[in-house]
Amino acid sequence: MIDEFILASCQMDVVDDKQRNIEHATELVKKASSNGATVVTLPEMFNTPYDNMKFVENCETEDNSTTLDAMKTLAKSEEIYLQCGSIAEKCEDKLYNTAYLINPEGEIILKHRKMHMFDIDTKNVTFKESDTLSPGDAVSCVDTPIAKFGLAICYDIRFPELWTLMCDEGCDIILLPGAFNKTTGPAHWSTLIRARAIDNEFYVAATSPSQVENPYYTAWGHSMVVSPWGEVLNSCIEEEEIIYTNITRSLLDKMRNEIPCLKNKRKDVYETIRK
Amino acid sequence: MIDEFILASCQMDVVDDKQRNIEHATELVKKASSNGATVVTLPEMFNTPYDNMKFVENCETEDNSTTLDAMKTLAKSEEIYLQCGSIAEKCEDKLYNTAYLINPEGEIILKHRKMHMFDIDTKNVTFKESDTLSPGDAVSCVDTPIAKFGLAICYDIRFPELWTLMCDEGCDIILLPGAFNKTTGPAHWSTLIRARAIDNEFYVAATSPSQVENPYYTAWGHSMVVSPWGEVLNSCIEEEEIIYTNITRSLLDKMRNEIPCLKNKRKDVYETIRK
Repeated sequence: MIDEFILASCQMDVVDDKQRNIEHATELVKKASSNGATVVTLPEMFNTPYDNMKFVENCETEDNSTTLDAMKTLAKSEEIYLQCGSIAEKCEDKLYNTAYLINPEGEIILKHRKMHMFDIDTKNVTFKESDTLSPGDAVSCVDTPIAKFGLAICYDIRFPELWTLMCDEGCDIILLPGAFNKTTGPAHWSTLIRARAIDNEFYVAATSPSQVENPYYTAWGHSMVVSPWGEVLNSCIEEEEIIYTNITRSLLDKMRNEIPCLKNKRKDVYETIRK
Repeated sequence: MIDEFILASCQMDVVDDKQRNIEHATELVKKASSNGATVVTLPEMFNTPYDNMKFVENCETEDNSTTLDAMKTLAKSEEIYLQCGSIAEKCEDKLYNTAYLINPEGEIILKHRKMHMFDIDTKNVTFKESDTLSPGDAVSCVDTPIAKFGLAICYDIRFPELWTLMCDEGCDIILLPGAFNKTTGPAHWSTLIRARAIDNEFYVAATSPSQVENPYYTAWGHSMVVSPWGEVLNSCIEEEEIIYTNITRSLLDKMRNEIPCLKNKRKDVYETIRK
């Protein structure tokens, strides 16, 4: 891994117009790239309102995807790694909430289908993703010349087992497109992001849609990048914004030497296994 | 489990005088009990400075322990559940950092030997517990008429696997005597306590020595009780203080219904196993 690169997190306004979202994402990514970022992230469901009916309306198959075609072209022209948030992926008779990582050659090098379905019922927010979506089964990691990346999506952050497995795979940084809401956001978002980073001593970059009030689902915003020490290196508030963060490989080793909790795991007593 | 009880967390000044520490802990516990607490906690290594040489000097065997005898008498006379922090337990030729839970009959109903040795080397704080102590191997939980309790100690909080196993065992509340320091305290203490509560949707009550500057090791203080929603219900700052928190069983069910992440675990994909 190259010791340092600039990651840009694009917290974007998502609207009820797929083509407009694709064009707007393209503008943001081009701007991030022109400012020196070599890795750029977009939010969960960046091309559609976060809504079960809208997932059905805006879904695409991977081999016939206006959205992915545009993102591949963009990654290649800008010569960046593009984590283009997630989209509603149609595959046979199922829909998935799927995140992609595209390399500077414009090729998809990693995909992650959200593993845990967001079915919550709080006083203020009720959502049942499993009404339309199916979960993925893969722990999603890929090595590249600049870092070993892992992908997880939103609700996946509540499951430490998945993160332990990504750590076991040797990930340096996890890219998490996510859309918490105004109930779970202030209560859990930053605590969980920071805890996953501290537990596993890797970077976590969480990218949300901005907090635009809309008839469907209002995201929390507050995209952030957290260091292996659990420090919030950079964060947005509610509005659309691109934040730029230096990612430094040597910080992982420093943290892992100072607090050797990865070495100190008691694998003679417990283990997180992958089935 | 009775739906509600009062838990008192005694963040106490620990000094370099075992007898004085026992007497002082007794005073605090009596005060907490007289104020209505039915569960009372003390800090990690409450009867000794946090120091390897002092562990050796102040250790006791379980069957000949001035400290445990005093605590058993106290729990019985006050008719409380007493989590008397931890002590340096000598057993055969080994020392352990061991926490005990004593019932209102004055009987030890649970012990936990710290499972993960605190061997850190940061810029400001270096400590190598394994120079004198040995780790325990048990996941430590016990059911009582008022709650199912789990015990963990300080550095154990960095290992989500142990917490998943305590959750699998059905714990309602984890009592964590702990002594973070002025480097790891501000960086990680509250984030990790809150994350373990959120991940597992149970209560976590973390009790530290107060932040008294001393030649050995200065604890962070900031004892706190966190709800299954991850909310800090009550907390200390640096000084000695007893805090009182209502623990309500029904909050666990409420949280677990609202955000069913325990049910949503993908045990077909991963599992934390106990060896």
